[in-house]
Amino acid sequence: MRAQGVITVDIEFDVAFHDVDMVGVVWHGHYLRYLENARWALMNRLDYGLDRMLASGYAWPVVDLQARYVNPARYGQRLRARASLVEWEQRLAINYMLTDVADGKRILRARTVQVAVDGRSGELQFACPAEFVECVHAAMAKGGA
Amino acid sequence: MRAQGVITVDIEFDVAFHDVDMVGVVWHGHYLRYLENARWALMNRLDYGLDRMLASGYAWPVVDLQARYVNPARYGQRLRARASLVEWEQRLAINYMLTDVADGKRILRARTVQVAVDGRSGELQFACPAEFVECVHAAMAKGGA
Amino acid sequence: MRAQGVITVDIEFDVAFHDVDMVGVVWHGHYLRYLENARWALMNRLDYGLDRMLASGYAWPVVDLQARYVNPARYGQRLRARASLVEWEQRLAINYMLTDVADGKRILRARTVQVAVDGRSGELQFACPAEFVECVHAAMAKGGA
Amino acid sequence: MRAQGVITVDIEFDVAFHDVDMVGVVWHGHYLRYLENARWALMNRLDYGLDRMLASGYAWPVVDLQARYVNPARYGQRLRARASLVEWEQRLAINYMLTDVADGKRILRARTVQVAVDGRSGELQFACPAEFVECVHAAMAKGGA
Repeated sequence: MRAQGVITVDIEFDVAFHDVDMVGVVWHGHYLRYLENARWALMNRLDYGLDRMLASGYAWPVVDLQARYVNPARYGQRLRARASLVEWEQRLAINYMLTDVADGKRILRARTVQVAVDGRSGELQFACPAEFVECVHAAMAKGGA
Repeated sequence: MRAQGVITVDIEFDVAFHDVDMVGVVWHGHYLRYLENARWALMNRLDYGLDRMLASGYAWPVVDLQARYVNPARYGQRLRARASLVEWEQRLAINYMLTDVADGKRILRARTVQVAVDGRSGELQFACPAEFVECVHAAMAKGGA
Repeated sequence: MRAQGVITVDIEFDVAFHDVDMVGVVWHGHYLRYLENARWALMNRLDYGLDRMLASGYAWPVVDLQARYVNPARYGQRLRARASLVEWEQRLAINYMLTDVADGKRILRARTVQVAVDGRSGELQFACPAEFVECVHAAMAKGGA
Repeated sequence: MRAQGVITVDIEFDVAFHDVDMVGVVWHGHYLRYLENARWALMNRLDYGLDRMLASGYAWPVVDLQARYVNPARYGQRLRARASLVEWEQRLAINYMLTDVADGKRILRARTVQVAVDGRSGELQFACPAEFVECVHAAMAKGGA
C-alpha cells in the first residue's frame, strides 16, 4: 500500500468531537470520510470533479478498500490526509496516508479501488473512460505530485 | 410538541456503539437518524413511501426541527421511536417521542415540519399535494393510530 | 433565534460528498455536525475547550435544539457557520447562522441550549459553574465579538 | 476472506434513507456501521460484550480492514450481515458477508482484525487475553455456528 502515486494531493483538518467514540479515539469508520475528502481533492486536481464525473455519464463506485490503522487519532488533533493516484488505466486506485500534522506520526494507511460503471447500462467498464485517462495525462504533464 | 397525531407508527432498535460519544451517551445529532427511520415508517404506513414520493415529482425537505433532550441514551439500550402525524394540509408536521422500551423512560421529544417542493420548478408549495392528502385520508379511514 | 451574542466565532468548510442525500442536498441531520464544530471553536475562544471541560468535572449535554432550514446546501459549496453566545449564566445558549461564503445566502438558523451536569452525582446544575462564567467574562473583557 | 468461522452470528436490518448517497446507493463508508453492529452481536454471543470488555481492562482497536464491494445496496433493501469468528488467539479476526435477504445476492465481503491493548499501559498484546479465549472456547463447546 505504500507506493507513491503520479499525482498527490494533501488536505488538512481537525478531528471533530462527533468522530470520537466511547474509548476516546476516532471511530474506525469515520476515517473513510477523511479519505473521501482527500479523494475528491485529488479528483478536482485532475479536473475530473463531481460535476464532470456526473456529466461524463459514469459512476465510480468503490469496489475494494484496504486500511491499516497504525495509531489512534483523538479529538482536536490536526491531521493531514494524502491521496496519491497509483492506477488510472483499467481501474482507479488511490493510496492514502493519514498523519499527524504536528509530529508526522502515522495514523492510517489505506487504498481504495474504483471502477467506472456506465450510468445508463449499469455495465462495469474494464478500462477507465478515455476522458478520465486524458485528465490524468494532462495533470501529469503539468507535474502533479 | 406533545399532541397525539392522527396516524402513529412505532419502530424499535438498539443503540449502536458508533452512536455513542466520548462522554458515554448518544451524540445528540445521531437521534435525527432514529427520527428519520420512524418518519419513513410513517410514510410507508400512509402508502406514500420513497418510491411514490419520487414518482409524485415532489421533494419534502425538513424546514423546521425542534428537539427536547430529556434523558441520555446509552450503548445497547433498546429504544422505541414513535412518529405521529399532526399536520398534513398546508405542511407535513410530525411529532416524535423516543422512549426506553424496558422502563418507558422518556429520552427525547421532537417535531419536524416539511413542505412540498415541486421538483421541476423548485417552487415551495403552500398546500400539500392532493395525492398526499388523499393518502392521509385513506389511512385515517382505515384507523391509523 | 436571531439575537447576536456577546462572543461570536466563525468557521468555514466545504460540503462533503458523504453529507449529501439522494435528493442532492445536505441531509438535514448532518448540519448538526457543522454546528458542533462551530460550538467547539466558540468554546476554545472562551478558553473552555474539551480538556478544560473534562477537567472541570462537568458535562454539558444539549437539552434543547431548534433549527430553521432556509435554503438547501449542496456538494462543494463553501459554508460559514457562525456560533454566537447568547446565554451563559443559568444555562449555555448558542445561536448559529449558516451561510454560503460566496453570496451570503442563508442556509440555516439554529439554537442549542446546554446545561451543566455534575459528572459524579449526575445532578443537573441550575446555574452555570463559576469557572465557566469567569471564562465568558474574561473573553468579553477582551472584546470577543 | 471467505473462510467460515467457528462462531457465526447474523443480524438483519433495512437500509436507511440517510445511508444513501447522491448516486442512489449506500455510501461505501456506512457499511462499516452495519459490520460493527454484526460484530457486537457476535461479541454478545461470546458473552464478551461491551460491559465485560470494558471491565476486562482491554480495548480492542481495529487494526486492519479489508472490504470487497460486490453489489450496491439501495434504500429500503433488507440486508443480512453475517459475522464469523476466524481468529481468536493472537488476534481477533472476523469475516463478514452482507447479503440481500430476499434473493441472497452478495453485497459486500469484509474482514476486520483487532488486537487487545492494555487500557492502563497502552501496550499492544501479542496474544488475546485468557478471559477472551475462554469465552470463545465456551461458545464453541455450546456449538456456536
